[in-house]
Amino acid sequence: MDAVARTVGVVPAETLLAHDGLGFLRGIIDGRLPVPPMADTLGFRLIAVDKGRAVFEGLPQARHYNPIGVVHGGLAMTLLDSALGCAVHSTLDRGETYTTLEIKVNLVRPITKDTGPVRAEGRIIHRGRSVGTSEGDIKDAGGKLYAHATTTCMIFPAKS
Amino acid sequence: MDAVARTVGVVPAETLLAHDGLGFLRGIIDGRLPVPPMADTLGFRLIAVDKGRAVFEGLPQARHYNPIGVVHGGLAMTLLDSALGCAVHSTLDRGETYTTLEIKVNLVRPITKDTGPVRAEGRIIHRGRSVGTSEGDIKDAGGKLYAHATTTCMIFPAKS
Amino acid sequence: MDAVARTVGVVPAETLLAHDGLGFLRGIIDGRLPVPPMADTLGFRLIAVDKGRAVFEGLPQARHYNPIGVVHGGLAMTLLDSALGCAVHSTLDRGETYTTLEIKVNLVRPITKDTGPVRAEGRIIHRGRSVGTSEGDIKDAGGKLYAHATTTCMIFPAKS
Amino acid sequence: MDAVARTVGVVPAETLLAHDGLGFLRGIIDGRLPVPPMADTLGFRLIAVDKGRAVFEGLPQARHYNPIGVVHGGLAMTLLDSALGCAVHSTLDRGETYTTLEIKVNLVRPITKDTGPVRAEGRIIHRGRSVGTSEGDIKDAGGKLYAHATTTCMIFPAKS
Repeated sequence: MDAVARTVGVVPAETLLAHDGLGFLRGIIDGRLPVPPMADTLGFRLIAVDKGRAVFEGLPQARHYNPIGVVHGGLAMTLLDSALGCAVHSTLDRGETYTTLEIKVNLVRPITKDTGPVRAEGRIIHRGRSVGTSEGDIKDAGGKLYAHATTTCMIFPAKS
Repeated sequence: MDAVARTVGVVPAETLLAHDGLGFLRGIIDGRLPVPPMADTLGFRLIAVDKGRAVFEGLPQARHYNPIGVVHGGLAMTLLDSALGCAVHSTLDRGETYTTLEIKVNLVRPITKDTGPVRAEGRIIHRGRSVGTSEGDIKDAGGKLYAHATTTCMIFPAKS
Repeated sequence: MDAVARTVGVVPAETLLAHDGLGFLRGIIDGRLPVPPMADTLGFRLIAVDKGRAVFEGLPQARHYNPIGVVHGGLAMTLLDSALGCAVHSTLDRGETYTTLEIKVNLVRPITKDTGPVRAEGRIIHRGRSVGTSEGDIKDAGGKLYAHATTTCMIFPAKS
Repeated sequence: MDAVARTVGVVPAETLLAHDGLGFLRGIIDGRLPVPPMADTLGFRLIAVDKGRAVFEGLPQARHYNPIGVVHGGLAMTLLDSALGCAVHSTLDRGETYTTLEIKVNLVRPITKDTGPVRAEGRIIHRGRSVGTSEGDIKDAGGKLYAHATTTCMIFPAKS
């Protein structure tokens, strides 16, 4: 989807630790930091981030299908895990890191290769000292809802 | 992972309707039916199925990584959605179909490219007339637990 | 909490079937229909309902405590199950009924007997032909968040 | 349900801190520690506990009904929150405490006042240093399943 060549890869821990959450995620959007491998493998990308909010876009395709003729629920789950996790990530200070403890995803409509591009938006609900929760959804270009989710993340000091 | 060439694709609705759930899933294992596209895209496959139980195997790799240096939660979610959904699918009679309403996944340990092959097993919990629930988990070759999940599926007559 | 005497009880199926969802729930607020027994047992009540939205109010007390010195999570869960279920119930036509398939509740702050009155609001997210999902939260009088939840309900024709 | 008089109440923090999880929960069963207020209010009690497993019993009654003529889902949720939380609590060392971050409950059959006594059993799934997860279910005396759940708890040092 990018007009310019982008590196795909994982950043070293030092790079991660040198940014706060918002700065790190903006670096991925700007192209200063590499495209995460899973985003490249499934064909989605981070397109917007603010403190407590992150938006990913992907294009459902034939290669995402499950055996019964619609897009595999795993695509929606991966997009939502990205969006909800990054909504929490965007609130981290330098020196903090996080891990997703659990996510619950509701699939309310089938996604097909005719759905067109979809956006997954994650929004912070609660940001405590050691726990963050967020919610979000997947909609098509017309605003139709396909899936929604909530997640629980644990926040803790990064090992430096 | 297969020794023989396999077709990747989605079966026509008639083929799906001509099987009960167990027969359909066994057709995927046997190679009579094509490999689902998402399984090919992410590199996992159905390796065992009984009535109320399904097992998938996948190999976590660098291409599944998220930006923060471990395998993206979406891989575990996709494997669990497959295993838990197929545990319900395996209980369907001819003429029945199903859809996943929701899934909740707990991620209890990070998966990396050094984890080796992982298996996601789904097991039916409740099979009612119009609702099925199942549970399951992801373990490595040594039996170490990485993730667990439960799902709610709706079962209804297939449109023929 | 009521200024006038209220009957506590369950309505006959005919009464339930004679109303659409909104009319039934308004009957409980107005006092034309009895207070549900569980609401009386735990001390909460429905205070507002619109199509797709329901609000309950309760007063956390010493009798709701768990052994470790805060209000039992079951109180928040019961209030949220009421609010999220009634958000779906409020969208039902005459002749439709529903059942809650699952609910996931996040508890983000402890509730104590000093919290004061809390409100649980449920809001519809998706209303399909046979499935409804809703979300909601519990806040105190100052708007502080204590818990949030999502639910999946199945909607089907009532047996008459 | 008890043959002897029991005190209802909450223990002081010192008492909680003086026990490991298993010792504390056994003290409630033995009657050395008071019955938790919520258990008295809703009519359920802890009847068995081992390391990683806890069982509660309750008797569904008319006072637990919701407006639509079956037992309120909140009773099942409260029993499951107790059982799953105590399954984690039973693994705590002296000086550790825990809080429930989230619980997801599936309701698979309606409970009525004719169901008879039900048991909620919680079983640990994962016990990490700072996170514990558990699962469990509610069954009647004949072993019929009514509800099942999973929970995520955070474990941390108690403030002394």
